[in-house]
Amino acid sequence: MLHALIMAGGGGTRFWPRSRRTRPKQFLTLAGERTLLQLAAERVESQVAPEQTWIFTSADHRDEVVRQLPNVPPEQVIGEPTPRDTAPCVALAAALVAKHDPEAVLLVMPADHMIEPAQEFRRIVHAAAGLALEHPDALITFGIRPTWPSTGYGYIHRGEPLPGRQGLSAYRVQAFREKPDETTAQQYLDSGEYYWNAGVFIGKASAFLDQFAAHEPEMRAGVGRIADAWDTPRRDIALVEEFPTLRKISFDFAVMEKCPHVLVLAAAYQWDDVGSWLAVERLHPHDADGNTVLARHVGIKTGNCVIVGDPETVIATLGVKNLVIVQDDDCILVADKSREGEVKLLVEELKRRGLEEQL
Amino acid sequence: MLHALIMAGGGGTRFWPRSRRTRPKQFLTLAGERTLLQLAAERVESQVAPEQTWIFTSADHRDEVVRQLPNVPPEQVIGEPTPRDTAPCVALAAALVAKHDPEAVLLVMPADHMIEPAQEFRRIVHAAAGLALEHPDALITFGIRPTWPSTGYGYIHRGEPLPGRQGLSAYRVQAFREKPDETTAQQYLDSGEYYWNAGVFIGKASAFLDQFAAHEPEMRAGVGRIADAWDTPRRDIALVEEFPTLRKISFDFAVMEKCPHVLVLAAAYQWDDVGSWLAVERLHPHDADGNTVLARHVGIKTGNCVIVGDPETVIATLGVKNLVIVQDDDCILVADKSREGEVKLLVEELKRRGLEEQL
Repeated sequence: MLHALIMAGGGGTRFWPRSRRTRPKQFLTLAGERTLLQLAAERVESQVAPEQTWIFTSADHRDEVVRQLPNVPPEQVIGEPTPRDTAPCVALAAALVAKHDPEAVLLVMPADHMIEPAQEFRRIVHAAAGLALEHPDALITFGIRPTWPSTGYGYIHRGEPLPGRQGLSAYRVQAFREKPDETTAQQYLDSGEYYWNAGVFIGKASAFLDQFAAHEPEMRAGVGRIADAWDTPRRDIALVEEFPTLRKISFDFAVMEKCPHVLVLAAAYQWDDVGSWLAVERLHPHDADGNTVLARHVGIKTGNCVIVGDPETVIATLGVKNLVIVQDDDCILVADKSREGEVKLLVEELKRRGLEEQL
Repeated sequence: MLHALIMAGGGGTRFWPRSRRTRPKQFLTLAGERTLLQLAAERVESQVAPEQTWIFTSADHRDEVVRQLPNVPPEQVIGEPTPRDTAPCVALAAALVAKHDPEAVLLVMPADHMIEPAQEFRRIVHAAAGLALEHPDALITFGIRPTWPSTGYGYIHRGEPLPGRQGLSAYRVQAFREKPDETTAQQYLDSGEYYWNAGVFIGKASAFLDQFAAHEPEMRAGVGRIADAWDTPRRDIALVEEFPTLRKISFDFAVMEKCPHVLVLAAAYQWDDVGSWLAVERLHPHDADGNTVLARHVGIKTGNCVIVGDPETVIATLGVKNLVIVQDDDCILVADKSREGEVKLLVEELKRRGLEEQL
């Protein structure tokens, strides 16, 4: 049986002012009318039953997830008492899945990336699930073919191809590589042997648990204790007591980079990690002046701007270009596009200034 | 007796979004905690009794004037049924003043200019009132010594000096000059013989009326009929019936430029016509980065910007310079400073787009 873990624990600030503590990126409609979380859940709902869909989020955001995903049973939505990065989340999901279905295959995916078309994603998930059953001790990751020498993503160096996979490019993984410098990124791109690591993993739940046992034995034991308590009245106590003691570390660092048997499938879908306001430009059409407008906007001599606002607010621009202008409720951001990655500095400054309500 | 006419009929759009149809510039606090109208009224209140202070505004804004100037008797606040520019307003004020006080001197001033220090303004008003009594057929205007070759103001060409005025530079006026081109403006500046026409006039009420009789006889007759009805139950009817029939023309064009006996007093005060958002820069201190901030602002790498907003709204800026950013209620303006004079084009576009609520 295929299970899915949708990781919705992010608390990012790069979409301030639209993202706030109470509304991180995965809960925003940055690419259409559905939130990124809703799009992620819809992406797999034809392949994974709601009862096999697990959403991990922070305890603060659990109600929002339940609200946004009415088809997913609330008991499948797990609120992490404290943020522990992705490894504990994957470990616990694998333990819960394996408890009732030892032969289960687990798909792990972020809640806040854009993937188009969803159909191509499902095709690869389907193939990967088959591959996971053939290689019951392997973890499989999806690799995105780089289109430019990004220094912002991690890379996967592929090794020898798996023989005889129809319509599927599958390889053993030689190595995971951290975010490279520009020269190295260009070499990766030129070699054709590297993929972007887009944070999607699939494997037998037992394979995930074996790898945690090998590389993070305490974490494996901890999530085992939570899983043991799961169908008892002690569930919530076990979660609150054990989860915060688990090592705070990413799944890539804790497990993937150490796992001896990793495969990569080349994913042919369009992928965007929706990393900042500039993603809005990539995910929406421009007007004739190069403006991407998700707002009630009146512009004169305005070009190459990203303009986002509430439907009730009029944003008027005059003689400006290359700006990101975002209004949300009682906050306005006006940033030069080239500086737009520094929005987090603004959020830190808001914090320093005690503007708690706007965070 | 000195009377004052404060002309508060402007409906300008250059301070959008803070100025709207319901809140033109004179009702805004652009230079401190008091509105421009309140500052204008305070400027003369030690010299002119409230019962001798007349405020003309549009009928729509009459209640706002009464609210902002609680010391002025409401019957002194006159709502013009339709906008007729400044000449009918000056003519009617002169007629009303002269009716009860034939020897009255009338000071005419705009409600929406900044003058500092008010004390210097009062000193010149005092001197001018004396001059008006000595020259009972003259109209006197205040001239501002130009500090740069503005092509946006009208100029006054001074003639021979009046003899023996202690502490006062008084001249006969040779000519009024329309807004000049740049070369001409530079010549005016270099000659030292020109002043900016700042729209302040003083003279005996009877002198004003005589000039209207000479150059605008129909207007003189029309305001006479309104004045005749003023202390009768027919006041409102006469105003509504007669005022809209008066010729729509500025006082400068209708009278001043034709008047044979005009004097100019050099006014040594600081003057600003508060013509656009850039005036906010002149009227308020800058921070170390050259930003003029009348808002709850958080900025990183932000320079030479004018930032104005409601106290509840956070305006955050990142990597931007030379912008005018104004938030007001449900509207936001982001304009390059160099284009800032074109705000009226934006307002026209709002009108065209049917965004009536934001006008």
